[in-house]
Amino acid sequence: IGASWAAYFLARGLDVEATDPAEGAEHRLREAVARHWSVLQHQGLLAAGACPERLRFHAVLEEALAHADFVQESGPERLDIKIDLFGRMDAAAPPHALLASSSSGLAVTEIQARCRHPQRVVLGHPFSPPHLIPLVEVGGGQKTSPQAVEQAMDFYAALGKRPIHVRREMPGHIVNRLQAALWREAFHLVEQGAASVADIDTAIAHGPGLRWALMGPFMNLHLAGGEGGMEHLLAHLGASIEAWWDDLGAPTLTPELRRQVVQGVEDARRERT
Amino acid sequence: IGASWAAYFLARGLDVEATDPAEGAEHRLREAVARHWSVLQHQGLLAAGACPERLRFHAVLEEALAHADFVQESGPERLDIKIDLFGRMDAAAPPHALLASSSSGLAVTEIQARCRHPQRVVLGHPFSPPHLIPLVEVGGGQKTSPQAVEQAMDFYAALGKRPIHVRREMPGHIVNRLQAALWREAFHLVEQGAASVADIDTAIAHGPGLRWALMGPFMNLHLAGGEGGMEHLLAHLGASIEAWWDDLGAPTLTPELRRQVVQGVEDARRERT
Repeated sequence: IGASWAAYFLARGLDVEATDPAEGAEHRLREAVARHWSVLQHQGLLAAGACPERLRFHAVLEEALAHADFVQESGPERLDIKIDLFGRMDAAAPPHALLASSSSGLAVTEIQARCRHPQRVVLGHPFSPPHLIPLVEVGGGQKTSPQAVEQAMDFYAALGKRPIHVRREMPGHIVNRLQAALWREAFHLVEQGAASVADIDTAIAHGPGLRWALMGPFMNLHLAGGEGGMEHLLAHLGASIEAWWDDLGAPTLTPELRRQVVQGVEDARRERT
Repeated sequence: IGASWAAYFLARGLDVEATDPAEGAEHRLREAVARHWSVLQHQGLLAAGACPERLRFHAVLEEALAHADFVQESGPERLDIKIDLFGRMDAAAPPHALLASSSSGLAVTEIQARCRHPQRVVLGHPFSPPHLIPLVEVGGGQKTSPQAVEQAMDFYAALGKRPIHVRREMPGHIVNRLQAALWREAFHLVEQGAASVADIDTAIAHGPGLRWALMGPFMNLHLAGGEGGMEHLLAHLGASIEAWWDDLGAPTLTPELRRQVVQGVEDARRERT
């Protein structure tokens, strides 16, 4: 995730100072950036003056952050590590720098616990891979200032990202919750023998997926309502929608269901080839 | 829905015999077909010899069906009407003809109740609009023959559709259940004040929606698992996914929530313009 972010920031014409304590990290990072570069070029995402050589690697975290304006943390998804990391980042970065976490699941309120300037700690959760998918979920913890959230939104937007404002700290933020809801019913349908894994994938990719790449679920419902829009749609279909809601499943990832889904993906891959 | 189907069948080079008891139905049908025709042309969907003039309209249902090979029923979504309609269709159509219903919510087992040849009654539920979206949900009721389901799948596939096999009769078939699951959490997030309607739409359209237009949720999870695929993904993220499932909401479409969503769509539209 960090390497993908680095490639994106470089492509948009920024200087990037990277750090990573792992053995061989610099080599792997430069390789990943080189790999992403041609894709970014192909997508028309290279800004004037953008250059992979503007990546500098530091073995020591404090040196990487000494002159930072914006820090994109993408460390391991463990609360104890994040708390420690943000304490060090907060001590090392200039006072004006924003500190953003790529965390997919942890709460900023907890991550910022040991910072002396917690008001500048924000969520900056990308949708993988960050160098290609525009969505970034931005939000604050209890001690984050509204200005910091706004600045982070502006920063990502200026780089061509599509930031959204997560107003409440909830497990999975916004997009993983929405995905999880879809996954839950998809797993339920497999468990019930209602359709094959391949057919459920086809239902999305050749059905609503074609619309969801253009606009989100609410605007789609609004358009489905015709001239009366969302209000008409809910008046007309609200009862059906609630009846479907009542019938949705709540599966458990039992060994048997996992096996069914793994087998189903295998079958789907074989069908394709 | 019926007019959209008619346009698609004509575009794929078939002869279409239409019927509709409503006042002015033929005029509206021909207008709709003409409107869809340029879109179908633009999408490269016009088969050799395809022609909107190959549409014939009949005021009397029995005349429309007298020489049919395949009947696509798209009448009102009311069980009493469908049961009556399929009784008449079954009596009028040649014995070899398949009778497919566009019903989004009714069970074939009930629809076929008063047919003398119920084995040929199938579900052929399109995703709107049928002339543009490839997905068709195909399934049978208790008295449908497996051959009829297979023939219907083959018929749609031969016309360039992406049929899936619905193996169990459940409210909402497959795709409306999957959509409803996503909608439920989306409405829940609005109710919780977790994000605006516009931001929830952005989260999908600039996040997973970009992937779902290429492949469905299972294949996406499989690819997210890297070399270990789905098995590795579930071993690694299964607990997180289950934790998200446990935290998903189950909202009710209260007047207040409806008002919030209608207002949110209005705000989103204003932002866009």
